[in-house]
Amino acid sequence: MRVIRTAAAQLGPIQRDEGRPSVVARMIALMDEAKGRGATFIVYPELALTTFFPRWHHEDRAEADVWFEASMPSAETQPLFDRAREHGMGMSFGYAELTPEGRHFNTSILVDPEGRIAATYRKIHLPGHVEYDPERTHQHLEKRYFEPGDLGFPVWRFMGGIVGMCICNDRRWPETYRVMGLQGVEMVVLGFNTPSVNSQKGTEALGDRMFHHKLSVQAGAYQNATWVVAVAKAGDEDGHHLMGGTVIVDPDGKIVAEVEGEADGVVVHDCDLDATRFGKETIFDFARHRRIEHYGRITAQTGAEVAV
Amino acid sequence: MRVIRTAAAQLGPIQRDEGRPSVVARMIALMDEAKGRGATFIVYPELALTTFFPRWHHEDRAEADVWFEASMPSAETQPLFDRAREHGMGMSFGYAELTPEGRHFNTSILVDPEGRIAATYRKIHLPGHVEYDPERTHQHLEKRYFEPGDLGFPVWRFMGGIVGMCICNDRRWPETYRVMGLQGVEMVVLGFNTPSVNSQKGTEALGDRMFHHKLSVQAGAYQNATWVVAVAKAGDEDGHHLMGGTVIVDPDGKIVAEVEGEADGVVVHDCDLDATRFGKETIFDFARHRRIEHYGRITAQTGAEVAV
Repeated sequence: MRVIRTAAAQLGPIQRDEGRPSVVARMIALMDEAKGRGATFIVYPELALTTFFPRWHHEDRAEADVWFEASMPSAETQPLFDRAREHGMGMSFGYAELTPEGRHFNTSILVDPEGRIAATYRKIHLPGHVEYDPERTHQHLEKRYFEPGDLGFPVWRFMGGIVGMCICNDRRWPETYRVMGLQGVEMVVLGFNTPSVNSQKGTEALGDRMFHHKLSVQAGAYQNATWVVAVAKAGDEDGHHLMGGTVIVDPDGKIVAEVEGEADGVVVHDCDLDATRFGKETIFDFARHRRIEHYGRITAQTGAEVAV
Repeated sequence: MRVIRTAAAQLGPIQRDEGRPSVVARMIALMDEAKGRGATFIVYPELALTTFFPRWHHEDRAEADVWFEASMPSAETQPLFDRAREHGMGMSFGYAELTPEGRHFNTSILVDPEGRIAATYRKIHLPGHVEYDPERTHQHLEKRYFEPGDLGFPVWRFMGGIVGMCICNDRRWPETYRVMGLQGVEMVVLGFNTPSVNSQKGTEALGDRMFHHKLSVQAGAYQNATWVVAVAKAGDEDGHHLMGGTVIVDPDGKIVAEVEGEADGVVVHDCDLDATRFGKETIFDFARHRRIEHYGRITAQTGAEVAV
């Protein structure tokens, strides 16, 4: 048994005018609760420090820099790092990253129990669009405000396991999990902000959207024999609703812990990394069963090519 | 709307001593039932003509040739082809193929409404093992009796749509669906013979195995915005139990039709191929969203490579 007692820490809504110190205080409260339940690792959502700003259209993109962090930790996030170190807890959270070179990424990090940033991931599958789209019920401007991640899908030795990250829409793409699975990943952590309404299909029920979320993370877990910790920011942000669905999924694809509702909340689960062995050594023993000579299109072409 | 009224035709158990003429008669009865319900296309299971013989160990592999078909159609299967042509129905079924060169494949075909074989697929992801394994509760000798398929995962223009095939264990591999998705597939048809017991994990519940089956086909459908028709051979074959789980899954990943139980049985559903458009044009518009520069490991390496 190699157990990481893991907390999935859902955040309820963050309104547009809520400042980072308030959000960080909420995150610390969740951390204290997780610590009280014995957790050694806590996972927060994507873009945890602010409202889900890609719904807001800034004609001048530079105006959007207000949502970005130019350093990490920053003065405002230092208390979160300090508390994690005091508790001896590892953590992961997402934020909008503005690099010294002026580049913009949707980023998440792993912070080790000593408070050091051990790993950085930059979101690769950016959903949405670049320009204001009057056809949509709401905007989803991730392709406007971020560059696609440039760091691939690495994994890291972290807290005794092999851990990888992805963010939100990445979780719907089987390539995400497979690239990490091919590096022996034992736990994938991810955060998400998923609108409760499909901006291009208003008739799609919330239940359907929750189904797609869970289907994607459960399949990714099962097909790579890995834990997946998927954490939502949820609830009504200035009239725009985000769904919940914070779950911990075991290497068999089963949901073993779930946050109910759309408020701040924590679930804790003992994730035994050795539980990944059976799947990796039998049905998903890649070395024995994969046939890469027939997968060429996956890396040779981006879009679908339909024969006439 | 481009509707193919599709029948998923589950077969109950086929005992070791049941001859092909008896099986073909059962298949024709299902076809007649499907025709009566207006179906124009019928899908049968993997290795539809015989018992699931890879559970039986033949020390001399040549003995196993009794389970293979040296021609298709054969004298014994010609009545099935004739009836399909009379009904003006397309069909797909699986069988063990022995080529003129003496090669062995686990094969499925598409037969057009004029009775011509329009497409051939040979199973790529062979599960199981090559030699008798006394550690297992039962044998699963597909790697002994078959070569891995050598035809890739093509798709075909068929009955007004873009149709692909895979077989049984292929359905658990996201690469299977993705390679076809990258060719614009609108319907994937597959058959399976899945033992109700995990030969290496006797404690795994039947419900878990059914969950993994459905999870895999539903995720493949959703993530490629394609119909999936997955057809079981089910029930007790000479004391070895196969699970059911015959389903038709829509391009949203939802099960829209299902055969209950483990006997011969048909479900029919109007599969509108245009229902694949929304997913292919929005969240799974591959050309806009995929980032192949980060997928390299998927085709560059077969097994997992774990950094020390």
